[in-house]
Amino acid sequence: MAKTEKKSASQRPVARLPKGMRDIGPAELRQTQAMLETIRGVYERYGFEPLETPAFEYTDALGKFLPDQDRPNEGVFSFQDEDEQWLSLRYDLTAPLARYVAENFQDLPKPFRRYATGPVWRNEKPGPGRFRQFTQFDADTVGAESVAADAEMCMLAADALEALGIPRGQYVVKVNNRKVLDGVLASIGIDPANDADSATRMTVLRAVDKLDRLGAAGVAELLGKGRKDESGDFTKGAGLEAQAIDKVLAFVGAGANGGPVLEAVAPLVSGNDGGAQGLAELQEIDAFVAAAGYGPDRIRIDPSVVRGLEYYTGPVFEAELLIPATDEKGNPVRFGSVGGGGRYDDLVARFTGQKVPATGFSIGVSRLQAALTLIGRAPASVPGPVVVTVMDRDRVADYQKFVQMLRDANIRAELYLGNPKKFGRQLEYADKRGAPLVVIQGSNERDAGEVILKDLIEGAKAAAAIKDNKEWKETRPAQVSVKEADLVAEVRKILARHA
Amino acid sequence: MAKTEKKSASQRPVARLPKGMRDIGPAELRQTQAMLETIRGVYERYGFEPLETPAFEYTDALGKFLPDQDRPNEGVFSFQDEDEQWLSLRYDLTAPLARYVAENFQDLPKPFRRYATGPVWRNEKPGPGRFRQFTQFDADTVGAESVAADAEMCMLAADALEALGIPRGQYVVKVNNRKVLDGVLASIGIDPANDADSATRMTVLRAVDKLDRLGAAGVAELLGKGRKDESGDFTKGAGLEAQAIDKVLAFVGAGANGGPVLEAVAPLVSGNDGGAQGLAELQEIDAFVAAAGYGPDRIRIDPSVVRGLEYYTGPVFEAELLIPATDEKGNPVRFGSVGGGGRYDDLVARFTGQKVPATGFSIGVSRLQAALTLIGRAPASVPGPVVVTVMDRDRVADYQKFVQMLRDANIRAELYLGNPKKFGRQLEYADKRGAPLVVIQGSNERDAGEVILKDLIEGAKAAAAIKDNKEWKETRPAQVSVKEADLVAEVRKILARHA
Repeated sequence: MAKTEKKSASQRPVARLPKGMRDIGPAELRQTQAMLETIRGVYERYGFEPLETPAFEYTDALGKFLPDQDRPNEGVFSFQDEDEQWLSLRYDLTAPLARYVAENFQDLPKPFRRYATGPVWRNEKPGPGRFRQFTQFDADTVGAESVAADAEMCMLAADALEALGIPRGQYVVKVNNRKVLDGVLASIGIDPANDADSATRMTVLRAVDKLDRLGAAGVAELLGKGRKDESGDFTKGAGLEAQAIDKVLAFVGAGANGGPVLEAVAPLVSGNDGGAQGLAELQEIDAFVAAAGYGPDRIRIDPSVVRGLEYYTGPVFEAELLIPATDEKGNPVRFGSVGGGGRYDDLVARFTGQKVPATGFSIGVSRLQAALTLIGRAPASVPGPVVVTVMDRDRVADYQKFVQMLRDANIRAELYLGNPKKFGRQLEYADKRGAPLVVIQGSNERDAGEVILKDLIEGAKAAAAIKDNKEWKETRPAQVSVKEADLVAEVRKILARHA
Repeated sequence: MAKTEKKSASQRPVARLPKGMRDIGPAELRQTQAMLETIRGVYERYGFEPLETPAFEYTDALGKFLPDQDRPNEGVFSFQDEDEQWLSLRYDLTAPLARYVAENFQDLPKPFRRYATGPVWRNEKPGPGRFRQFTQFDADTVGAESVAADAEMCMLAADALEALGIPRGQYVVKVNNRKVLDGVLASIGIDPANDADSATRMTVLRAVDKLDRLGAAGVAELLGKGRKDESGDFTKGAGLEAQAIDKVLAFVGAGANGGPVLEAVAPLVSGNDGGAQGLAELQEIDAFVAAAGYGPDRIRIDPSVVRGLEYYTGPVFEAELLIPATDEKGNPVRFGSVGGGGRYDDLVARFTGQKVPATGFSIGVSRLQAALTLIGRAPASVPGPVVVTVMDRDRVADYQKFVQMLRDANIRAELYLGNPKKFGRQLEYADKRGAPLVVIQGSNERDAGEVILKDLIEGAKAAAAIKDNKEWKETRPAQVSVKEADLVAEVRKILARHA
């Protein structure tokens, strides 16, 4: 190590974040912490139990279900272990759950209800607000065939959003069913059970999933020959005929004008068993959530929801914020999806060959947090520590004792640990840390058995009102001398004043 | 997806955890959660601010400082991004901090005090209790040259352990200094600044780091020609002469008999500037923690502590549990190290060329948790949810309403979502989930506007005392009928009884 300092600049590594990654500072992290606690509370109330699976799995166990087919490794970060088996960082929390359930099936209560939170990684093209590591918070019920389980997921999503401070009416949980979409596809000659058609089906799904972002015209291009984006990149389309495109768009747009959705969809899947079953499931979910008191202001059927992940087999959900907001530049911002999920009845069967019905919901914590911050619903920040300054470097142990007294009284406090030579630096540091006050003891104070408490918040206000240095020196605002023995009590007074 | 079920067993992936990884269930996770909260409280009280860096970094930015030189990639999991740059999963939280500080130096308050928690990954040989993913909880002060910062780390460690419930006297934070060890090495002709000697130095450090596990004889082998372990694997030694080995062991063992440590060490480094400086630093730390009221029952100098990581440059710390304990088989267990740290003044300079003094402490959360569980200090578990059963599958929406009432009253509750046909299965499920009670409503109860509450905890006790099925049917112990409107109040009564 001693040698590294001698390296020339060109030999030294550059301190830089990997592409698409970010560091998260105290204000945001404390908010995340509070959000996770709130979501955890709701999930626990619903009877889910926590589970943690590792960050990476064998690649074959995760499978590749992401909508990122054109990305390296289909959007997944992968590497080999010493036995040359491929491992991948998890891209969601659902695929690892399927592995866990398949591995431990005999020992689990059935249905198995678990929640999980943690980072997931996707090798996506990074963009503004789009990172390669982000946090999800999932609840899943495995082993429940009844759509009551799907309905519960939608209610859970609604409750979680409200618990986080999103007012009712400013979000909606949308529900659709892949079976209905497949019924529509069948009517235009696409059979998902047919190998040759399954790629076309996924292309259609992914096209529809972009309705939010691209609008009907953009989706029509992706359903047809293809689409060139702003950057000039061309995405190949599903190759549907104009009439087929119209039918898909009619389905996707059903109910957009506020009319009865299920009635509008029914003729599009007439004669198709799967489609009819999907419709019946949607009807059941609708009735179920209505009976539980969740009206269409919270949960509603919307055929435009398809979700991009390949593994969904039935109902799919998406939670969307409806809050009007503007970004820093004053431009209107659409928050869009802050969570989603659905039924994935075949994911455990990948391992066992036996169908295990399952459904779940995933909150995109990072994205939701950005939204909460924009609408001013983020929790308040924590004040900085009391900083005990160092006037006389030979008396550091004495200053540490003040720190100790404060900490023992459960007051956030620290000793200034930088070079104490320039006292101004210490005050600058305290300011930068958001310290509410600093503790000072020079030799005069020590001889008197006193300490000075300098209220930085009050001081900043006073400073703004003071004309010159002379007045400052004479008045020394927001500064009090107190007995050493009263340190804790006096600090508490100042903290209470600013609480 | 529909096709996967048709795959033959040999085509299906096997549901298995990657080597060295594990799943963590509810009881342990809830404990971890509580532990992290406690540690966070202590770190916050000390004035540290949270920071989160991503799970992986560019490999050159992390550097390779692990003691696992014989492992693939020197103990690190690595992979390439689409630009063929190498990335590695972080093996600790210190190397990413150095990258962060170097990248953001101008904007940070100095000293910069941050805490961080999260998983780290090491490509180690897995063993009992030794996993490839584990959780650390670190606090670091960057930009503080004073050993007051090191002393604070030791006090922080002591406070955190006590906050977690380890009684004083049952742990100790040991302090040593790499500079002193380097002074000893200089006296036997090993110069760490000399390229040819630096590998020998690290071999010596790693040998000494195993004192705990191998004892003096084993370490002597590793300092000499080498050592064959139980499995027959041979580890090449440092190749020291017998006299040099004796000197290293004399240093490492200084104070083991309870005598004054610093006095015993002084002659071993006489005439070596670095060694003398290291001794002076240890003396300062000792005086500092003593002045703050931390006696040798909490923090003490111990030359046997060296730590395995290469990047330490001065004081090194190790927190050790002293609690006598036995494993499930009744064998005595030594907990050993549950955390450690030290000063790493050159880690930021790897990037910037400018020395930035830094020191930190890291708690090994997973290992400490295992210890707390063994000594019975782990927090109590959370009771399962109230399970609302399904007697009549056409009335699921009604049952859901009971669930809703309970959840609205902040009572953990769920609907039985499995196949309701066999009622016994529902009770088995409730048992398995640790449900304190179940709610039952058949048609008779419905007509009377009542529900049955079956107390499973009381019921289990009663069942043990009952002779036969007949008596059971006649008495139906621990079961009450209550008005629907009183559901919440009556459930609360039963929960209170078992709280």
